[in-house]
Amino acid sequence: MPNVLIQGASRGIGLQFCQALVNRGSTVLACCRNPSLAKDLRELQSQHPSQVDIIPLDVTNEEAIVAASEHVKQTHGGKLDLLINSSGILSPKGRGETSLKDVSLEALQETVTVNTLGPLLMAKYFSPLLGAGNGTFGRQAQSAKESHAAVLVNMSARVGSIGDNRLGGWYSYRMSKAALNMATKNLSIELGRGRKRVICVALHPGTVDTDLSRPYHKNVPKNQLFSREQSVNYLLSVIDGLTIHDSGKYLAWDGSEIPF
Amino acid sequence: MPNVLIQGASRGIGLQFCQALVNRGSTVLACCRNPSLAKDLRELQSQHPSQVDIIPLDVTNEEAIVAASEHVKQTHGGKLDLLINSSGILSPKGRGETSLKDVSLEALQETVTVNTLGPLLMAKYFSPLLGAGNGTFGRQAQSAKESHAAVLVNMSARVGSIGDNRLGGWYSYRMSKAALNMATKNLSIELGRGRKRVICVALHPGTVDTDLSRPYHKNVPKNQLFSREQSVNYLLSVIDGLTIHDSGKYLAWDGSEIPF
Repeated sequence: MPNVLIQGASRGIGLQFCQALVNRGSTVLACCRNPSLAKDLRELQSQHPSQVDIIPLDVTNEEAIVAASEHVKQTHGGKLDLLINSSGILSPKGRGETSLKDVSLEALQETVTVNTLGPLLMAKYFSPLLGAGNGTFGRQAQSAKESHAAVLVNMSARVGSIGDNRLGGWYSYRMSKAALNMATKNLSIELGRGRKRVICVALHPGTVDTDLSRPYHKNVPKNQLFSREQSVNYLLSVIDGLTIHDSGKYLAWDGSEIPF
Repeated sequence: MPNVLIQGASRGIGLQFCQALVNRGSTVLACCRNPSLAKDLRELQSQHPSQVDIIPLDVTNEEAIVAASEHVKQTHGGKLDLLINSSGILSPKGRGETSLKDVSLEALQETVTVNTLGPLLMAKYFSPLLGAGNGTFGRQAQSAKESHAAVLVNMSARVGSIGDNRLGGWYSYRMSKAALNMATKNLSIELGRGRKRVICVALHPGTVDTDLSRPYHKNVPKNQLFSREQSVNYLLSVIDGLTIHDSGKYLAWDGSEIPF
């Protein structure tokens, strides 16, 4: 059975990934800050008790990440086939800055820590487990030279594109996602060496009906606002098509590349 | 007399900018953490007492930035023609991470705070002063539509290019500079509106003989290692040629654009 770890699993896209991957027969290691408050996740676990392990994890706490990685090593065979870093905040207040006057050091630091540094620390401690994966996700390699052990997905966003930035604003969120794209590129290089290679990609889910985007829905044309189900189906089909040659890319829900 | 503010003025490229701009007849507002330790800067001040004001400033302290901006408002006419954010660290230990195992939350946070969040906070508090500048730096505008009040330079580095990243490593530094490039792009949009526009650019100084780069000199071909004088001369000629149409760009010492 494939092992999948979802970080940020209690709601939004992360929760939807858990549901979709349980349906596909994966063992889902569902990480979230407060399992006691994660009602939907506990419901999913009660329906599929053998497939869902809820793991408490705060990505801003390095020791908590170490503890979670030890738990996976000891109770799930020490291997992961897919890791999805899904948690993210627009800012601690839940609103992107519309201009410089809204920018503060504390909000910038917290946003970057949650959205960027947390996912990189996850990669630090879980990459050995990804190296032990079975290559279940992504496209079957045509040769040993092109093989991969696992896939690492960092949930980015199109507003993290520097080249494509036309509107400005949302300083904390945009900066955190640009830095996450760099982290993903760096990871693709470091984890692309040797025989136990990990495909690392940054994905843009489209504009999805979640708590994070809800304050901005009135600006989104209806056919461009995806349900969580739609977005995750699109993203899984991107993931299913990945090869080692895609590692380091920044891809939208339709598989198209986004400029950094 | 043009007013120039250099943040990170006590050494390296920042100090060299102070020397070059004093020679050009500017009033230099030289910001550094510890004026009492800034021997070279105090020497420059003693040679040109009317042109150099040394201002204590720690960019990781928002209140200190507010205080410095108040000082400039009250004692230098409340206008700036050029602001250069020059301070930067590879990591708190002075060495870039060669692999994930060297990555730590504290070092990432400190590097991002100094290299990225500090320069953005400088823009927050000094942009009104830049809006009052006389357009002394950059190319003379051909029409009112193309005019600008001042220039804001964030010292970036080619290793902050996500698209151009082939070697990986240096996680903290690369991520901080990619996020700084995004901040610069965002600033170019916000400060490019209205009539008091500020040209905002991210510049790559080349590989320069400074404390930051010294541990890595053995890997750099001799003709690609610039003295501080060479690099700052190149950068000033890039700055001299800027127009409002260059705002938001990521430019190397020779004026060529670097992909984000």
